[in-house]
Amino acid sequence: MKNVYEEALKLHKKNKGKIKISSIASIKNKTDLSYFYTPGVARACEVIAKDKTQSFDLTWRGKTIAIISDGSAVLGLGNIGPEAALPVMEGKALILREFAGINGVPIVINTQDASEIIQFVKQIAPSFSGVNLEDIGAPKCFQIEESLQDIGIPVFHDDQHGTAIVVAAALKNAAKVVGKPYESLKVIVVGAGAAGLATSRMLLGLTCSSDTCEIIPGHSRVSDVIVVDKEGALFSGRENQNIYKQAIAGISNKEKLQGSLEKVIKGADAVIGVSGANTITKNMIKSMAQNAIVFAMANPVPEIMPEDALKAGAKIVASGRSDFPNQINNALAYPGIFLAVTRGKLTAITQEMQDIASTTLANLITKPTETNIIPDIFFPHLAEKLSDAILKVKSRK
Amino acid sequence: MKNVYEEALKLHKKNKGKIKISSIASIKNKTDLSYFYTPGVARACEVIAKDKTQSFDLTWRGKTIAIISDGSAVLGLGNIGPEAALPVMEGKALILREFAGINGVPIVINTQDASEIIQFVKQIAPSFSGVNLEDIGAPKCFQIEESLQDIGIPVFHDDQHGTAIVVAAALKNAAKVVGKPYESLKVIVVGAGAAGLATSRMLLGLTCSSDTCEIIPGHSRVSDVIVVDKEGALFSGRENQNIYKQAIAGISNKEKLQGSLEKVIKGADAVIGVSGANTITKNMIKSMAQNAIVFAMANPVPEIMPEDALKAGAKIVASGRSDFPNQINNALAYPGIFLAVTRGKLTAITQEMQDIASTTLANLITKPTETNIIPDIFFPHLAEKLSDAILKVKSRK
Repeated sequence: MKNVYEEALKLHKKNKGKIKISSIASIKNKTDLSYFYTPGVARACEVIAKDKTQSFDLTWRGKTIAIISDGSAVLGLGNIGPEAALPVMEGKALILREFAGINGVPIVINTQDASEIIQFVKQIAPSFSGVNLEDIGAPKCFQIEESLQDIGIPVFHDDQHGTAIVVAAALKNAAKVVGKPYESLKVIVVGAGAAGLATSRMLLGLTCSSDTCEIIPGHSRVSDVIVVDKEGALFSGRENQNIYKQAIAGISNKEKLQGSLEKVIKGADAVIGVSGANTITKNMIKSMAQNAIVFAMANPVPEIMPEDALKAGAKIVASGRSDFPNQINNALAYPGIFLAVTRGKLTAITQEMQDIASTTLANLITKPTETNIIPDIFFPHLAEKLSDAILKVKSRK
Repeated sequence: MKNVYEEALKLHKKNKGKIKISSIASIKNKTDLSYFYTPGVARACEVIAKDKTQSFDLTWRGKTIAIISDGSAVLGLGNIGPEAALPVMEGKALILREFAGINGVPIVINTQDASEIIQFVKQIAPSFSGVNLEDIGAPKCFQIEESLQDIGIPVFHDDQHGTAIVVAAALKNAAKVVGKPYESLKVIVVGAGAAGLATSRMLLGLTCSSDTCEIIPGHSRVSDVIVVDKEGALFSGRENQNIYKQAIAGISNKEKLQGSLEKVIKGADAVIGVSGANTITKNMIKSMAQNAIVFAMANPVPEIMPEDALKAGAKIVASGRSDFPNQINNALAYPGIFLAVTRGKLTAITQEMQDIASTTLANLITKPTETNIIPDIFFPHLAEKLSDAILKVKSRK
């Protein structure tokens, strides 16, 4: 078998990347030019000058999403900078084309300052139907996204919400397979960055803004979540917790457990790794409840390799990678979400829309099994199905 | 004949714009995904993290140009804002694809503040091989471009240099047709914005920075240029001249003529309109020297309609439009220039490269005639020929 990394590098080099700009307007002669360029183009400009919303129908804007990163938290690789983040953003654009039939434009930027990123996104907004923030480090990602909710187009931090949507869907199906009610699960979340906190919020059915979290009435929720960062479990009143960690600490970890992952994971029903390579050991898995559920989602190297988790007694194992069963990857959610953004001219992606996306995703698997808790990215019409479900929420408003 | 404006509007609406993102990497199965997305993509990231220049070879960056506008000076339509500027930027991207085979990404931004635009371009630079600034008003465009000359990739304000390159080429051939030496021409430039000042600099063989202009030794130059703005001819010491106008006023208008266009155009050999609709009258043309050369380049409506200029006695008439002979349009230059940028990994587009581009363009017409002073945009391999010429300059360094 080919080495996946070296083959990948060869393929990236072969064609200089993975996407290109193509024409959908053919220019064969001067008449064509006079329609698509000067003088004819002036008419489209004039119509938009009178009504800016026409830019969604008269330009590619209506089918185009910006994928923006500062390169501060790329995959499991960390703060590798904007240039090095570009292959990931281009990969996301490729996936938007292949699985949603829409345009994604990779944009990596030369600043890691939260207020500058906010200003940059506001400035670039007239060019796009929506913005996918990507691989931007926590905690600034929370502030950045919150500050960008009223700019006229949706701004969606995929590492937070995309992850939360897909994890919640997979966990619901995993609970069915192991025969435990979802509402009874005690879940350990390893990692308190963008993905960790957003996933914890989703699993606990919370709505949070900066330093406050509240339970959403009627939202499905697991029994308890304990979030663990490098210093151990978050608990109310712990030192060295930023405001976002404090907010969730106050509403999770019912028993106020303290200490390391190794300590708090004992007896848990599920562990969700959104941290980095090799942070979960076999012994930890062995200490969990019977029929343990293990989602080890760090990329490219998971918290524990799937085969090791299984050997240690896990019943269901999922990862973020394409080369193992049960791939829990944001790529299952964001193509459908941004398809809905473009088709519905959405101005926001509400919590209700995210919940529907998660439920729809889970329900696509009619009979979950140990190796099939979540649809494959190749599931027929996956993006269309999510988009349809989201747009039903919109049409009800 | 179809109405060009209504037909253009219909075509813009039909497909929502003119360009799209396509895949150049096919994703048929999980193995493909593991190469182009996670985990394989991490290898490309790691290689770039060690050497940022690898981003030009491992991503689409190496073939991709940003086309950035604030919508402050769009065509002859004026300050119509970013959304309304988008059809023009998308048209430029279409032309880059069709005529140079490279990617252009239209970016319109929600600020018209010079220092914010400068910051924005610096921030977005890691995503692209070069930046085409477009339809940004004068005089801020001069400051913006000057401030962006050392950011690692070339920043080229097309309205300035693209126009200057093509006008100089056309004027050289027009001089041949009317039998006057280029160096003897007295030229009126109508409009002291981006295009007007840059063209005047090129025709006089000047290199300018902010408030200073100097003659480039050995550079071809016409006998005199008189630049005219809304208040009449620029001359040394005139009031209401920004620093850029003052700089050129001191080195042009040898006779220190004062007054309106109508007054100073008398006896001129050529008039170059880069201002707005209907600013040149038949009577003005009649007052020019025999065999007058008239370039009326405002878009979409020229300074004087070509048929009227001919009726008034002009010998050679050119416009910026696709639907008349002698189209003097930046589109003749920028595809070749940005092809050179991508092929040569240029970090700047020097004055020498611009001169070579202009000379190459002029020399493609071996026998200029009244209706053929400049190549057609469909001239075979036009962009390649300009790119080759530019890269010869680079390789000599």
